[in-house]
Amino acid sequence: MHAQPPAVLAFDVFGTVVDWHGSIVRELAALYPQIDGDAFALAWRAGYQPAMARVRSGELGWTRIDELHRMILDEILPRFGLGPLSQDERAHLNRVWHRLDPWPDAVAGLTRLKARYTIAPLSNGNIGLLTHMAKRAGLPWDCILSAEVFRAYKPDPATYLGVARVFDLAPEQVMLCAAHQDDLAAARDCGLRTAYIERPLEFGAGHIKDVSPEPGNTLHARDIGHLADLLGA
Amino acid sequence: MHAQPPAVLAFDVFGTVVDWHGSIVRELAALYPQIDGDAFALAWRAGYQPAMARVRSGELGWTRIDELHRMILDEILPRFGLGPLSQDERAHLNRVWHRLDPWPDAVAGLTRLKARYTIAPLSNGNIGLLTHMAKRAGLPWDCILSAEVFRAYKPDPATYLGVARVFDLAPEQVMLCAAHQDDLAAARDCGLRTAYIERPLEFGAGHIKDVSPEPGNTLHARDIGHLADLLGA
Repeated sequence: MHAQPPAVLAFDVFGTVVDWHGSIVRELAALYPQIDGDAFALAWRAGYQPAMARVRSGELGWTRIDELHRMILDEILPRFGLGPLSQDERAHLNRVWHRLDPWPDAVAGLTRLKARYTIAPLSNGNIGLLTHMAKRAGLPWDCILSAEVFRAYKPDPATYLGVARVFDLAPEQVMLCAAHQDDLAAARDCGLRTAYIERPLEFGAGHIKDVSPEPGNTLHARDIGHLADLLGA
Repeated sequence: MHAQPPAVLAFDVFGTVVDWHGSIVRELAALYPQIDGDAFALAWRAGYQPAMARVRSGELGWTRIDELHRMILDEILPRFGLGPLSQDERAHLNRVWHRLDPWPDAVAGLTRLKARYTIAPLSNGNIGLLTHMAKRAGLPWDCILSAEVFRAYKPDPATYLGVARVFDLAPEQVMLCAAHQDDLAAARDCGLRTAYIERPLEFGAGHIKDVSPEPGNTLHARDIGHLADLLGA
């Protein structure tokens, strides 16, 4: 750690704070028990990076994640025998991303961190999605920062440096906290400090994720409660 | 009221939720008791609309309120015999806008409203300012919306319509709550519902503000607690 602690902790959300895989599997089991929820969740999420890449490349104009999720959903539904879903059913299912459940340690860990630091998401999710999610799950953010604020998707430097600029801070006064090494590496390249959060179950119990430490990160935490321990919160 | 209640309540902040005049007078009394705090607060605030007008007209590029407040401050300090203030003292005084106290009814009223509605500021203040203010004062916003998100200052329609777009709502599903009739009129022109909040002491006890009802508003409330009554929260 540096002599000075960071002032702002910016959190990746999907996978780091909330359990997208488990939440989608649970919702599908309730709504459409005939389909393979695990495969469906993975297929939906697999479309995420390619869809954002189309925005980053300029092929698509600025498009929010709600719309990108819907484009991917419309594409995969027929593969799972759900092609006949109505517009209303599709719209409802698409909003499952607003209803993701937090990991069990997230609310308590963030609440501890909030007492000492300014905490905000830095997510590619849109503002409305992140606000609905926080309200439902009780995520105690100090403010909602999103790709939508910066009109750029991570790993664009405009997002990481945007957090520093919003708070008039030097990049090293901001720490990105995420369960994804590529996100953290991009933040580090911008001068932010980084904390890796282990989420071995991000892709479900059938697809355990490697959570080995990466020496480039400032901190390596088992979960957000452990991060609060490490940051003295 | 319409048959359907609004989904989102967007609040003007300076004067509506927080008492800028009283907070600045109190801070000046502590720091620089030799000057006329009432006149100083009014002079500082009087520079606000002209400074934003320079951004709106394009004379200045996008400039945040923190910077505009500082430009006005540098201009008025010599008039009050404070020309010798150092850069650090100026920077500290300028941040008084991050430390404004809420009106006595604000935190309790917003907390009631939050249980039933999504609540957010819609302020010309920048994101960092509004976040610091909320954290210090305990304002329980669901998210922070600001001119900085929309890169436009109220009364630009991009701000009012921007709130509706963020939440995928029709304009009439958003209610602007403000102590300023011009702000409310601009929101109404964009199709939002409007609630006027009486703040007769906005400019201090020596300059009582007219708080007469304007029939164009959807609601007229004595304070935010009364607004919660009117909205069944």
